[in-house]
Amino acid sequence: MPLSSAEIASALATIVGADAVVSDTAKMGAYLNEPRKRFHKTAAAVVTPPSVEALQAVVRWANENHVGLIPQGGNTGLVGAQVPLFGTEVIVSLARLDRIRSIDTAAGVMTAEAGVILENAHRAAEAEGAMFPLWLASQGSARIGGVLSSNAGGVNVLAYGNARELTMGVEAVLADGRLYQGLNALKKDNTGYDLKDLLVGAEGTLGIITAATLKIFPLPEDHETALVNVASPEAALDVFQLMRQRLSSRLNAFELIPHIGLDFQLRHGMLDADPTASPSPWYALIEVTRMAGTEPGALQSALEATFEKSLISDAVIAESLADRTRMWAFREQMSECQSKEGASIKHDVSVPIAAVPALISEGSAAAERLSPGIRPVPFGHMGDGNIHFNFSQPAGADPKAFMSQYDEALHEVIYDVVLKLGGSVSAEHGIGQLKTDLLKQVKDPVALEMMRAIKTALDPNGILNPGKMLGFEPS
Amino acid sequence: MPLSSAEIASALATIVGADAVVSDTAKMGAYLNEPRKRFHKTAAAVVTPPSVEALQAVVRWANENHVGLIPQGGNTGLVGAQVPLFGTEVIVSLARLDRIRSIDTAAGVMTAEAGVILENAHRAAEAEGAMFPLWLASQGSARIGGVLSSNAGGVNVLAYGNARELTMGVEAVLADGRLYQGLNALKKDNTGYDLKDLLVGAEGTLGIITAATLKIFPLPEDHETALVNVASPEAALDVFQLMRQRLSSRLNAFELIPHIGLDFQLRHGMLDADPTASPSPWYALIEVTRMAGTEPGALQSALEATFEKSLISDAVIAESLADRTRMWAFREQMSECQSKEGASIKHDVSVPIAAVPALISEGSAAAERLSPGIRPVPFGHMGDGNIHFNFSQPAGADPKAFMSQYDEALHEVIYDVVLKLGGSVSAEHGIGQLKTDLLKQVKDPVALEMMRAIKTALDPNGILNPGKMLGFEPS
Repeated sequence: MPLSSAEIASALATIVGADAVVSDTAKMGAYLNEPRKRFHKTAAAVVTPPSVEALQAVVRWANENHVGLIPQGGNTGLVGAQVPLFGTEVIVSLARLDRIRSIDTAAGVMTAEAGVILENAHRAAEAEGAMFPLWLASQGSARIGGVLSSNAGGVNVLAYGNARELTMGVEAVLADGRLYQGLNALKKDNTGYDLKDLLVGAEGTLGIITAATLKIFPLPEDHETALVNVASPEAALDVFQLMRQRLSSRLNAFELIPHIGLDFQLRHGMLDADPTASPSPWYALIEVTRMAGTEPGALQSALEATFEKSLISDAVIAESLADRTRMWAFREQMSECQSKEGASIKHDVSVPIAAVPALISEGSAAAERLSPGIRPVPFGHMGDGNIHFNFSQPAGADPKAFMSQYDEALHEVIYDVVLKLGGSVSAEHGIGQLKTDLLKQVKDPVALEMMRAIKTALDPNGILNPGKMLGFEPS
Repeated sequence: MPLSSAEIASALATIVGADAVVSDTAKMGAYLNEPRKRFHKTAAAVVTPPSVEALQAVVRWANENHVGLIPQGGNTGLVGAQVPLFGTEVIVSLARLDRIRSIDTAAGVMTAEAGVILENAHRAAEAEGAMFPLWLASQGSARIGGVLSSNAGGVNVLAYGNARELTMGVEAVLADGRLYQGLNALKKDNTGYDLKDLLVGAEGTLGIITAATLKIFPLPEDHETALVNVASPEAALDVFQLMRQRLSSRLNAFELIPHIGLDFQLRHGMLDADPTASPSPWYALIEVTRMAGTEPGALQSALEATFEKSLISDAVIAESLADRTRMWAFREQMSECQSKEGASIKHDVSVPIAAVPALISEGSAAAERLSPGIRPVPFGHMGDGNIHFNFSQPAGADPKAFMSQYDEALHEVIYDVVLKLGGSVSAEHGIGQLKTDLLKQVKDPVALEMMRAIKTALDPNGILNPGKMLGFEPS
């Protein structure tokens, strides 16, 4: 006989105190309302444990009583992993575990609890002259636990890696309430299986991350940033390869932007000036770091080489912080500018880097066949093969009709192209509840079975974020 | 009723053909004789499958018949993971799966089968103007499958990462003979649990790796190498931090070497000339990469800064390939030079980087208390916190007596110091059969239980490298 919401809330209040439990649905808005506005189930309760020990007690109780728990950070996730699927789960907010436990710039590590807001992690590192190089649009709200559970990326994956690569160790509460203590500042440690990389990116289904040891890096003294004119995604790829050859890991960012993005942003007054050198069908935003004690000019020198090879036709290098800020605004406003042009259908996909031009051309052609006049707006992390392959409705179309007619059909068409090119249907955002069916369709069945076996082994009662990611529960 | 060796060999011959089975113990030497000369059990048979499908058939049969399988690459492992523990296992050599399946320098990936010799992987990348930056002393024999199964490191982990970090995806035969097809050239792919990082470093206990997609990098145009005089490990640590601050990931290597190593090597004629600038109690071998199109002098400039801060007293920068070769020989001959000075006791340990000076001073003091006159010879990857903390016998002592009296006692003393400093008792070499008991003693019990649960889930009959690493079998 499953417990009622009232029984659940009451039991939790006994464990962590009534002030750490939200039982009134009317007060749960901040925890239930997710960014996509797609998922609307309620929760049995929300609990905000003030400590790791309190969280362990909650999980032990939930495991004994077969109550589903949904770990939540900043509620910024885009696939509904952090909000209810069934309506009977308890949301566990990690927000009160918000301490920076330690920073050691010499060792290049910072230990932060799961509830630390990403932007605060940045500030803590900068206060010590270092940086935690993972930047997301949502960093003012996203918290470390969620960033790691979704293996978030960002524009600097090219130089510094994604969340998994930036995490050295984690501490996590397991399904039975025991604490896995893997906070590890060791770069070399071959004493058993890699549990850290299993827990990171598991979307809260194998353990609730409570703290992590993160890599921090020396602050560059400066950045060199340019907006470069390229004729096509193929040309952009050639430029990327030359940049990588010459600059190696000083290459901080390589972002592809289509001209339509500039149109949209200028038309709607989103830029104080045109950041580009001159009109071009495509642009590449390129950035290089410069460390203290090294000479400036590496980017300029590399651009001259691309110009000599006729890979680019024009370029502008940022000469001031205002220039650099404007160039990055041009890139960061790409999603927002689409919303000013009606409805849009989005895809978070990746392909092998060399297949990015094919993804864009074949995907755009397929979309045009499906919906004549549809406006492709592909942009993003070309150096990672991760393109935000978005489509704006035809100009003048009815937004609701467009979405209801084409949303699913276009997803199918684009995912077909992606899979044919050996790509991923979820490059950054994860599976959550949005893509559980899709995962079952497209993922290698042997891999799915391994994952189910691991889930069953580590969470036999299926209480950790039930139904998310694998869309499967052990019991 | 377990099968006899004859029955096993016969069954295998039926599956893969008699020419792929070695059943005569007298002909198994190459597979049984491991580098440490510590493990002497025989095998029921050795099988050399010519293809992935043949290997799958072998594993299916072994799983149905409860026969233990030991995957083996180049037989260079140092903890006995690749040789029998019980004497009834079948060694499965991956040597015949030795193709480079593909190289794509634009995408920065190379797919190599498990039997590819590491040195051949280097050559294949170099033929395309790229490099696979994982260098081991054993690279002329070590094979990719073993390199990955042990998560091997090397001197360039500082700049490029260890085997796990250099692997993008793997293909592996699972315990039931099914093929996990995770060869993945995608940098960003959030579609499920990270199975790749679970299989890498699992020492063949969760799956038999048959191929891997490896990261390759643009070849640097040049290296800048220096041998620097430092007063102490503490001073070396300060130098390391300054180097890292200025050079970031262009810092290719930072190796600590004690003066006693120079003594040993010069005394035994192992160097054609003294590679150092002048006498010093400690040396740091520092190397920086220079990419095409960038200015030389970054190392010199950084060294000048260390000199101004009085962190170093003298230095010599390599001016020729001969200089560079001699400096690296000085480092690479450290293990060998000890063997010319009698018996030595070795430890493959790591601590947080900032604790390296404490490891060396406390470990040396403890060793001296245990065995007066013992000669500490600590050297290695300071930038990773991984010191090969070796001890040469007192001059003139009887080698056999020294080893029998102090081998275990010194391990205990040094591991105590390592664990107290938050370190690892196996930084690089893994657990195999050498350190199974030690792992059970020192590892977090919750972590061990998670590992056993995962092992049971993925290999319920316990046929994959039984008894290795966890020293535990499911059935």
